[in-house]
Amino acid sequence: MLSSVWIVLSCHASRPWPYIITLFQTLTKSTPFQSSLSLSSFSYSHFLCVFFFFGTFFMALSKISTSHTPSQTLKPNFYSKPCVPLQCYDARRSGVSFEQHRKLRISCSVAPNQVQAPVAPAVPSDTTSNRDCYGVFCTTYDLKADEKTKSWKSLIKIAVSGAAGMISNHLLFKLASGEVFGPDQPIALQLLGSERSLQALEGVAMELEDSLYPLLREVSIGINPYEVFQDCEWALLIGAKPRGPGMERAGLLDINGQIFAEQGKALNAVASRNVKVIVVGNPCNTNALICLKNAPNIPAKNFHALTRLDENRAKCQLALKAGVFYDKVSNMTIWGNHSTTQVPDFLNAKINGIPVKEVIKDTKWLETEFTERVQKRGGVLIQKWGRSSAASTAVSIVDAIRSLVTPTPEGDWFSTGVYTNGNPYGIAEDIVFSMPCRSKGDGDYELAKDVIIDDFLRERIKKSEAELLAEKRCVAHLTGEGNAFCDLPEDTMLPGEQ
Amino acid sequence: MLSSVWIVLSCHASRPWPYIITLFQTLTKSTPFQSSLSLSSFSYSHFLCVFFFFGTFFMALSKISTSHTPSQTLKPNFYSKPCVPLQCYDARRSGVSFEQHRKLRISCSVAPNQVQAPVAPAVPSDTTSNRDCYGVFCTTYDLKADEKTKSWKSLIKIAVSGAAGMISNHLLFKLASGEVFGPDQPIALQLLGSERSLQALEGVAMELEDSLYPLLREVSIGINPYEVFQDCEWALLIGAKPRGPGMERAGLLDINGQIFAEQGKALNAVASRNVKVIVVGNPCNTNALICLKNAPNIPAKNFHALTRLDENRAKCQLALKAGVFYDKVSNMTIWGNHSTTQVPDFLNAKINGIPVKEVIKDTKWLETEFTERVQKRGGVLIQKWGRSSAASTAVSIVDAIRSLVTPTPEGDWFSTGVYTNGNPYGIAEDIVFSMPCRSKGDGDYELAKDVIIDDFLRERIKKSEAELLAEKRCVAHLTGEGNAFCDLPEDTMLPGEQ
Repeated sequence: MLSSVWIVLSCHASRPWPYIITLFQTLTKSTPFQSSLSLSSFSYSHFLCVFFFFGTFFMALSKISTSHTPSQTLKPNFYSKPCVPLQCYDARRSGVSFEQHRKLRISCSVAPNQVQAPVAPAVPSDTTSNRDCYGVFCTTYDLKADEKTKSWKSLIKIAVSGAAGMISNHLLFKLASGEVFGPDQPIALQLLGSERSLQALEGVAMELEDSLYPLLREVSIGINPYEVFQDCEWALLIGAKPRGPGMERAGLLDINGQIFAEQGKALNAVASRNVKVIVVGNPCNTNALICLKNAPNIPAKNFHALTRLDENRAKCQLALKAGVFYDKVSNMTIWGNHSTTQVPDFLNAKINGIPVKEVIKDTKWLETEFTERVQKRGGVLIQKWGRSSAASTAVSIVDAIRSLVTPTPEGDWFSTGVYTNGNPYGIAEDIVFSMPCRSKGDGDYELAKDVIIDDFLRERIKKSEAELLAEKRCVAHLTGEGNAFCDLPEDTMLPGEQ
Repeated sequence: MLSSVWIVLSCHASRPWPYIITLFQTLTKSTPFQSSLSLSSFSYSHFLCVFFFFGTFFMALSKISTSHTPSQTLKPNFYSKPCVPLQCYDARRSGVSFEQHRKLRISCSVAPNQVQAPVAPAVPSDTTSNRDCYGVFCTTYDLKADEKTKSWKSLIKIAVSGAAGMISNHLLFKLASGEVFGPDQPIALQLLGSERSLQALEGVAMELEDSLYPLLREVSIGINPYEVFQDCEWALLIGAKPRGPGMERAGLLDINGQIFAEQGKALNAVASRNVKVIVVGNPCNTNALICLKNAPNIPAKNFHALTRLDENRAKCQLALKAGVFYDKVSNMTIWGNHSTTQVPDFLNAKINGIPVKEVIKDTKWLETEFTERVQKRGGVLIQKWGRSSAASTAVSIVDAIRSLVTPTPEGDWFSTGVYTNGNPYGIAEDIVFSMPCRSKGDGDYELAKDVIIDDFLRERIKKSEAELLAEKRCVAHLTGEGNAFCDLPEDTMLPGEQ
């Protein structure tokens, strides 16, 4: 009963007195992280209201991000409003009523591992056509006209998690500028944040607005992956919990595994059936494995773990050693895990089309210092720059996407962590392993042929493989393969990514 | 005499004891805001030295804004090593000494108004051909081949100050990606930092390296504008001192004015004769005026103060109010100073080609709230995001450059702060004032015609004009126009830029 009172009140959230009432309610009974769906929804609302009372930050939160697993309580016509366009809060400021939106939003807190993967997509496909919109984003005819006059492709939806972080702060503007998908590809950005980051997320949306990118047609922000991943054709999963002080790698695997299990379920429920997923949050290989295991309706082949920054760094180090410009280095493979067991492959790499070992005679350097330099690059950068490498990581995500949407140059390949399911390299199946790939530019890829593997290389590949199999055992409870058993030998987190 | 002793000592500014000596000098005779030119210059040096003594912050100042006209002390062969290529520190890490490079930097503390602008370019044009280079950047034949095979344009040099800051961290990657100058324009980045930021600057260079941008052929970093601005065709002056606690706008004008006077002299001495300069560091209009007054050999027309972010924000707010997509708003002018006296012009602006006032009937909103929203946007963003708007500022710098290197669409125009030297709008001459401009895409511009100015608009333009004339009087000692006299009525710094 109280809660219904609250919902009515909060529809008039622009006036202060409901906050006062709700503040008292909250102080008396709020327990924000209850796991019971029904109860926590009330307490959550109250929890929010306290903050409304203290400032506009949480107004933004209530307006934009609170939400519910659609399949559980929302009536079908509610699905048609899963995202709040960029202009919502501006519409509010410019006097256009935002309140109808509020009424549609009910807030629940569900711990990630309580979410059940819906058996079928939660959203009837027909409802996506009549989405609610505001301001510029109502003029869809307008976009259609633009598509025609400017011979644009039709809009694609790109979901990004950890959207308020530094990597995203670089990446989002690259996506919006057309640098990634081309100057004829209009895009919608669907940004997933956390409660804590929601205000910052609004700031990001404001900056995207002020950038006037013609190709950026929609921006929505939220904290519920079941809403934010709605119909997305790309999911760039950057957000992950940083490692806390004294946290073991196993602990990091578990805490982030929870997040990626939930996001996998959400993708399975609401994303495009052919969504391409790039996992950046560490430990990214195993996070990607967890994610794809929780998304049975999406082809496992569509999931990637980002090892492109390692590839780029490896190319740069070879160029430096050989004294050539970096664009002369090709066929660079990063094998295995995005960790210190990763294997930058100098056996198959080429400089000006010639095998690296014929150009760089210093075999000792190749076998020891080279790999070390690639792995420690992030650490050196933090020492120099005081921050982790957000900009170049964003660039490597752009590279990873473009490698899938543009044809791979003849005779070359790129590295990406993909699901092993029948590979010619003798790598264990059913893990996410970085390997050399080629693409026709259709978003799909195939494994590269003509790859040599000698004993030295095989031995190092096996070490990374063993680590990934161990990580897999640590997260068995998240991949639906029984009880976890964790026996990670050592800490293999890359310097600068701790 | 004392002061000459001081100058000699401070040439070894990297050791602490001269500061101690200068500290005593200062305590006995420093009077920082003396109006007498000759005296104030000395007292200024002392004034600075006190701060040197208290921390590295002001060491930065001494390195950025102190330097020496090469023609006075450097031997010609020193000119041949004005820049530190991207690979220098890599070379260093791989055993090649970086120190000989550092030794080439002679740094003396000379108050800017003691430095004489050289009568001729300080660098014999022939010396630029035999520059020192490292790693990939020695293979210039390589670039020439690329230019031919890839039908690239020839390399342009772009200098950026404040290169270790957040705005630059976005901007540099946009420049390197080809987003600004196009996919056929190879570039060299010449990054100006401070002693304090030099390490971070190395970090930036490392990230640029790891990004493998094929168009980015050179990166050099340095702390001496006379080296870093060498032959640059674009100078993006982003670095400026933030406003200290309790610092008056007059104080900010003076402390940043010193920097921009110095950088103007450096551009005059070593930059391309047709360098285009965009001043971003605040207060940018008056900084731009100071800069151009100290660069008599460069056309005053080539200097710009950035008001493009204000223009973009204004367009966005009009779009929101009218409920159209932002790409439908055109002919947006920001008049005057980049401060709270700026005038976003809704009289001449158009939505879908129709005057704004015919589309937005709410005149009260246009006359009051609209301008306020544009001005307060930065402040709101800081509240939300916790940081100032680095990303969208970088985007607006990109827009400002592209507006000069691509033809302006028929009937439209853009805003930029330029030197007033015969304008049809009745604006006072000899200041830097933001006005509507058009470009043929040759890097040059002309003032827009068909601009209406009614009484309401004129009155507000006059207010901004009056402010700029007052700011100009405050910095007379830096523009060579006699003694400064400061009577700024109020603080007009934009929220979010304090």
